[in-house]
Amino acid sequence: MFCKGLLLQGLGLPALWRYGTVMTLTDIATRTYGHNFRLDPIVRSLLDTDFYKLLMLQMIQHIHADVQATFSVINRTRSVRLAEVIDEEELRAQLDFARTLRFSKKELIWLAGNSFYGRQQMFSPDFIAWLADFRLPPYDLRKVDGQYELRFEGPWTHTTMWEIPALAIINELRARAAMRARGKFALDVLYARAKAKLWDKVERLRLLPDLVLSDFGTRRRHGFLWQRWCVEALKEGLGSRFIGTSNVLLAMDADLEAIGTNAHELPMVAAALARDDAELASAPYRVLEEWRAHYNGNLLIALPDAFGTTAFLRDAPSWVAQWTGFRPDSAPPIEGGEQIIAWWKSQGIDPRTKLLIFSDGMDIDTIEQTYHHFHGRVRLSFGWGTNLTNDFRDCAPDGSPGLEPISLVCKVTSANGRPAVKLSDNPRKTTGEAAEVARYLRVFGEGGRVERKVLV
Amino acid sequence: MFCKGLLLQGLGLPALWRYGTVMTLTDIATRTYGHNFRLDPIVRSLLDTDFYKLLMLQMIQHIHADVQATFSVINRTRSVRLAEVIDEEELRAQLDFARTLRFSKKELIWLAGNSFYGRQQMFSPDFIAWLADFRLPPYDLRKVDGQYELRFEGPWTHTTMWEIPALAIINELRARAAMRARGKFALDVLYARAKAKLWDKVERLRLLPDLVLSDFGTRRRHGFLWQRWCVEALKEGLGSRFIGTSNVLLAMDADLEAIGTNAHELPMVAAALARDDAELASAPYRVLEEWRAHYNGNLLIALPDAFGTTAFLRDAPSWVAQWTGFRPDSAPPIEGGEQIIAWWKSQGIDPRTKLLIFSDGMDIDTIEQTYHHFHGRVRLSFGWGTNLTNDFRDCAPDGSPGLEPISLVCKVTSANGRPAVKLSDNPRKTTGEAAEVARYLRVFGEGGRVERKVLV
Repeated sequence: MFCKGLLLQGLGLPALWRYGTVMTLTDIATRTYGHNFRLDPIVRSLLDTDFYKLLMLQMIQHIHADVQATFSVINRTRSVRLAEVIDEEELRAQLDFARTLRFSKKELIWLAGNSFYGRQQMFSPDFIAWLADFRLPPYDLRKVDGQYELRFEGPWTHTTMWEIPALAIINELRARAAMRARGKFALDVLYARAKAKLWDKVERLRLLPDLVLSDFGTRRRHGFLWQRWCVEALKEGLGSRFIGTSNVLLAMDADLEAIGTNAHELPMVAAALARDDAELASAPYRVLEEWRAHYNGNLLIALPDAFGTTAFLRDAPSWVAQWTGFRPDSAPPIEGGEQIIAWWKSQGIDPRTKLLIFSDGMDIDTIEQTYHHFHGRVRLSFGWGTNLTNDFRDCAPDGSPGLEPISLVCKVTSANGRPAVKLSDNPRKTTGEAAEVARYLRVFGEGGRVERKVLV
Repeated sequence: MFCKGLLLQGLGLPALWRYGTVMTLTDIATRTYGHNFRLDPIVRSLLDTDFYKLLMLQMIQHIHADVQATFSVINRTRSVRLAEVIDEEELRAQLDFARTLRFSKKELIWLAGNSFYGRQQMFSPDFIAWLADFRLPPYDLRKVDGQYELRFEGPWTHTTMWEIPALAIINELRARAAMRARGKFALDVLYARAKAKLWDKVERLRLLPDLVLSDFGTRRRHGFLWQRWCVEALKEGLGSRFIGTSNVLLAMDADLEAIGTNAHELPMVAAALARDDAELASAPYRVLEEWRAHYNGNLLIALPDAFGTTAFLRDAPSWVAQWTGFRPDSAPPIEGGEQIIAWWKSQGIDPRTKLLIFSDGMDIDTIEQTYHHFHGRVRLSFGWGTNLTNDFRDCAPDGSPGLEPISLVCKVTSANGRPAVKLSDNPRKTTGEAAEVARYLRVFGEGGRVERKVLV
């Protein structure tokens, strides 16, 4: 490379521009390929997903291969009328392209041969073999009242894998639409400012000596390349304080740890399949036992908030206190953390041996506050999502219409035909049919649930 | 091009990175050329200079072709020991490369065929023909006490043309040295921040509806590519309020107006050649008469401060008040401007018909202050130099050692063997031998000269 190669890239100038007297050499094949390519795909690999999806998938494939589950994309930011922003043809083209993807040989070798959380062979040979034939199942897309209704019906083993690519595709198509009208220069300034903004955050994070942080930003990212830049920024700027990324493809490409364990869909499906209220009440704990058994006592991080953290802790068997820790995901971090610490203490457990992972809408201010609040009292880790990979607020020279992040989720909405429900600690994050929500509230109680604005 | 081509460039990622399944196509010839190139030249064209050099050169070549003039590079920021920062071999390689340059056919055609300040054929056919054979003359380089002594001796018609390339080469070599130790990522953040910083300035300038501004930053630039980015930023951000650039190459490439008229070397040489004190006293006005006659009454901008603005105005013939305006260059902008306005009024001239061009160390704050102070009272224009093209203060993730701009100038120091002097309105900008400076002070007086810190 030229000694100034990077400088040139940073300036966004063609590599040979500076050779005033030398004609630029264009790679004709590259240009021709570009002209002929059908579309500019957003998701180019089935590994471009969150690691927890693969861990959950393996358990689902081993134990629940017969369950049918429907996932639905839900835009909680109703004011943004996605169907008026994103072209339906473009959206279908991206979803169709994702359906053509297969795990490549290289990817499967990496999954089989890599160690995760220090453990070899996290994925069994039979599961790797099963993955080789995997493809994303069909989707159902329609426009309703300015929004897209995007649903995935079929075996849980397949529909579950749509969650991350569907969200990444919609978020990036929205960002592309917002940028289409912008000039070349406005885009250059936009990215320069976003880089400067993120680096300012990195410099503040460097002041936290015991910080443990990972990237959780795949689903809400501005775009794949931007997420990659953000991950490189954290790797460079935070060193060992940056422990990895939830994005499996980026983990592979950048030699980082893949981070993640499990998500709400496990207790939600278990709850949906419960035959009566007693089974419903015990569903969250059955799921944990299953997980623990399947992963031989590894990956013991529990999500407490699927049906309210207060209910979960109130009824939790004492063995739950032996797990490594919790990922509070809808209570405010300090309140939610204090509630869990108090519970550990009530179980006779020293919280300093336990781990709390905060990942709900965190940003630099709340990371700092939470860090300082809990530092020394409990082990801490942060999963940084939307505000890491999609913070373009105030970065566009002409304002940021279309670039403020929205609260878009993809949730399981039914299992074997029975409606699925998530209560969460924040009623605004509740999903599910009203009658069924009312039943869940009767079973689990409303204690501790407080309405709070959902920003991202 | 791909529809996301620019976005990719802005992110500094290889163009095909995003095609996960497509091998990147490398242009082997480009890479090989890069490996074999002797050096990465800083000045690649003789047009990469300030426009006023060409305007002055034409007059010198027509009228003063027999004058011998020595130019010397002077680093007023003594604390920066340039000879310890810049490798002598590298410096010689760059200077030698610049000496190999010729005006290309395309460049001469553009100079001959373009209109400047609305006037066709600003450069005569005989001068264009003379330029075709032009090359930069030899240089004399030695190290003295941690600094470089860089001098150019020979015909004024040739040595004058070293001013801008010599300064641009030294400034860029210093910037390259400061960046050599930085990692790829630190450089990316550095440029992102510098871009964001400049754009913040642009957004403030957009609030000044009658702003008239041009780029004067060639000599002090961080680097050629960076200057080019800055010029594009102003073009995009300020529209018609950005009237052009002093850099002839950038003016040609970006279809901008080339901006500039004349500089201190004209009165300095005239003063050096004066045979007695009376001729010395009248030298500044003789030069103006010569200029006016040579350019047929165009380009009538006077520099008042070569030997002190107070003296210049005190002794100025009344016809000087008929000129288009002044470029005060070493007095503080508001004081200097008020002094000239008062003089115009004393000559019975309405200042609103006259032009003041401010170009001495301006930055966003002083531009705003000066604009608001004079708006409506006089026509205003700004030449923005160092703080446009070399403001990396607080932009480097690891601090900015070696990136703060220095006050480096290249001045005529003798003409036909006689010492040249510049007094300026600020004694810290005085150049010349002590005895000769004393004589000039006797002839012109010390009135109005006030010592002020020289920042850039």
